[in-house]
Amino acid sequence: MSEAAPLISENDPVLDSDFAIEMVRQMRAIDTYGNYDNWPVNKILDPFVLTKEMKREIPIIGDPDEIIMARVKAFYNAIASLIEKECGLMAVPLMHLSYEGFGRVIITVGKLVVMDRTLRDMHRFGFPSFSKMKDEADKLLSVALEIIGKHSEVAGM
Amino acid sequence: MSEAAPLISENDPVLDSDFAIEMVRQMRAIDTYGNYDNWPVNKILDPFVLTKEMKREIPIIGDPDEIIMARVKAFYNAIASLIEKECGLMAVPLMHLSYEGFGRVIITVGKLVVMDRTLRDMHRFGFPSFSKMKDEADKLLSVALEIIGKHSEVAGM
Repeated sequence: MSEAAPLISENDPVLDSDFAIEMVRQMRAIDTYGNYDNWPVNKILDPFVLTKEMKREIPIIGDPDEIIMARVKAFYNAIASLIEKECGLMAVPLMHLSYEGFGRVIITVGKLVVMDRTLRDMHRFGFPSFSKMKDEADKLLSVALEIIGKHSEVAGM
Repeated sequence: MSEAAPLISENDPVLDSDFAIEMVRQMRAIDTYGNYDNWPVNKILDPFVLTKEMKREIPIIGDPDEIIMARVKAFYNAIASLIEKECGLMAVPLMHLSYEGFGRVIITVGKLVVMDRTLRDMHRFGFPSFSKMKDEADKLLSVALEIIGKHSEVAGM
């Protein structure tokens, strides 16, 4: 909860991407008490950036708290939402995360698994920079869309 | 925790089925303290039977406890295990269940979703009789194998 300057610059061009807009939407959706209402978007997305130095300061073994779990969910919900927008079919995320921070997250479209990831060390969830985070999202999205294109029949089931 | 006679007869022929054998295996797997070691199989599987009368006595709204959640998991793990045995490909269950007893369980084989169910009212999880439970399992199994047969390429991904 440091009050240091955000790691994401408010002029970061990545903030205008569909991905960033969707991420902000997901974060606002879980903001029950409206804490983020007056926050600029770079401040809302800031907790997703975890530099190497910051990561090093977190113990290797630890349990993720509710806030981190909600963040992990927000990230994969955003991916699912972008997949849905691109292919026009409903994309549903399903996450199983133990309280120890291990688990699995998948996104299904119809009967097709379009993303499947093992989760671990979730108490240290974060990306080296915001543009790296977007790269990661773009990769997941393009792989998912490729699978849907190849097996559209199963995706439409 | 009544000490009434088990609802499943010890001579029930369904107890010899692959399904029952797998169910017992799953139940023993979660029996960390070996409480079931000296139990006959009909007693181990008895909690899965919930007659209409028993169901009526459980409040409509309630939270499932850890024991019930473990039972739900055991059931779907057994289904996954039977699918795996039949098709020779790894079948992986993934369950998301909120503490309120709502959720979703899916089983994937490769990139194919072979079973997908919404879970609700899990605090009243149970089957009217043991043979009805096996019927349910058989149905899930045959639907899953049919999907795998139709989309073997995706199942093998």
